[in-house]
Amino acid sequence: MKRWDTVAIVGVGLIGGSVGRALLARGLAGRVIGIGRRASTLRKARQLGAVSETTTRLAQGVAEAQLVIVCTPVDSVVPLVREAAAACPPGCLLTDAGSTKARIVAELDAGLDQGVAFVGSHPLAGSDRSGPEWARDDLFQDRVVVITPTARTRVRDVARIRAFWRALGAGVVAMSPRRHDETVAATSHAPHVLAALLAGATPRRYLPLVASGWLDTTRVAGGDVETWTQILQQNRAAVLKSLDKFAKVLDAMRRALAEDDRPAIAGLLEAGKRNRDAVGN
Amino acid sequence: MKRWDTVAIVGVGLIGGSVGRALLARGLAGRVIGIGRRASTLRKARQLGAVSETTTRLAQGVAEAQLVIVCTPVDSVVPLVREAAAACPPGCLLTDAGSTKARIVAELDAGLDQGVAFVGSHPLAGSDRSGPEWARDDLFQDRVVVITPTARTRVRDVARIRAFWRALGAGVVAMSPRRHDETVAATSHAPHVLAALLAGATPRRYLPLVASGWLDTTRVAGGDVETWTQILQQNRAAVLKSLDKFAKVLDAMRRALAEDDRPAIAGLLEAGKRNRDAVGN
Repeated sequence: MKRWDTVAIVGVGLIGGSVGRALLARGLAGRVIGIGRRASTLRKARQLGAVSETTTRLAQGVAEAQLVIVCTPVDSVVPLVREAAAACPPGCLLTDAGSTKARIVAELDAGLDQGVAFVGSHPLAGSDRSGPEWARDDLFQDRVVVITPTARTRVRDVARIRAFWRALGAGVVAMSPRRHDETVAATSHAPHVLAALLAGATPRRYLPLVASGWLDTTRVAGGDVETWTQILQQNRAAVLKSLDKFAKVLDAMRRALAEDDRPAIAGLLEAGKRNRDAVGN
Repeated sequence: MKRWDTVAIVGVGLIGGSVGRALLARGLAGRVIGIGRRASTLRKARQLGAVSETTTRLAQGVAEAQLVIVCTPVDSVVPLVREAAAACPPGCLLTDAGSTKARIVAELDAGLDQGVAFVGSHPLAGSDRSGPEWARDDLFQDRVVVITPTARTRVRDVARIRAFWRALGAGVVAMSPRRHDETVAATSHAPHVLAALLAGATPRRYLPLVASGWLDTTRVAGGDVETWTQILQQNRAAVLKSLDKFAKVLDAMRRALAEDDRPAIAGLLEAGKRNRDAVGN
């Protein structure tokens, strides 16, 4: 039995494509309509089994959807959700997959068209890759999806959005948009900045001699620059706070090295190992 | 045909164990003698096929070796090489696998016992794991090993050490100890520090929400603290220089975020992506 007749996905890259593949592979949706601007990307997504139909016209794509997921860079989420809300049927549930939530939810929480609901989502999955060719039907399996309902959100819609992500194999955690943004500033956005700065600061002539340590530490720096610039700008206050905190421990380590202070050097490494070991691989 | 009758490995952890496994798996050595302090580790190494014989007595273990590889934390390399040089046969070649070279080579370059040669090595391979249970016979396959001969090193011994690492599947690059240390400060030691500081600076309550970005960026922070403290102390001048440079780009990014300077944010991310993409995965 299909859980949804028609699901529309706006933006069929790694995340949108993986949502579609998971829905189709698990037989959860009758139709998955891929909506995007580029015909070539849409064609690729359909060929890869990420969507069953495609269109470049958003209003047409969402006209019969019970569920719309906007999976675009964060600056496009608000206008696209508004556009979808104006064209989808009453009772339709809208969500997104953006890495920031405070601004998006604040703008959309003021209310959409009658009978249409938006609940923010952020699947903590993804990679430095982009495009539907990297989409996987198990991308959300055993991953965490943060949803960010507010005081205005109806309990029924929270249950619907939870059920959606759970159907794709994910665990769902609810928190406020602000708390979400503070958390991912520390766990994702600041790490991305540090990886990019480290990669950029490495002299070119040394690159042939990097090994797995550098490769791991800088991997996310390969991510799309436009996507990440938007994320960092939307969440800049919280990211700055995380980076300020990092700058303090960096100063402490530089002082420890300058003074050849063995216990201080070891102590800073130990604090890192403790947290890293607490998480596992 | 065996290329070496007897090879001695001092320290049978990840690196020493992998040297032994590679030698035995490729039929390159008649006997591989594992030397260490702990009988339990030596037993494990033998059971895993990393060595064919073991002893806790260094002088006895190297007595018939044509080749001795010291694979211990960097602070132990010099005393162990000296001890081995005093007990091994004339014509024996000694090397190490330490992540720092300047101090080690400077102390040993003054000369060992007559007819015994030391050439520094650093295989750019390894991981955040330690112990013989992680040893692999292909750890050096298609990896780079830096060797650090000096003006005193005999050409014959450079050729011998090159041939050794090449036989294990690695490519070999020769450079001065100082240049090696400056390079790995940027490509390995500073990245390790940043990964550890990032892991340590992440609030504990956020750890359940980390995803692949944090996991990759902090992976090396799980490495052994004692091993890394020694490396950082031995190479602290070059590491400090790398961290000072990093602190400057970190300041630039904090300023760009504080001023919401989109081109500056994107430019810093772009510089990182350019270097990261130049290397591949």
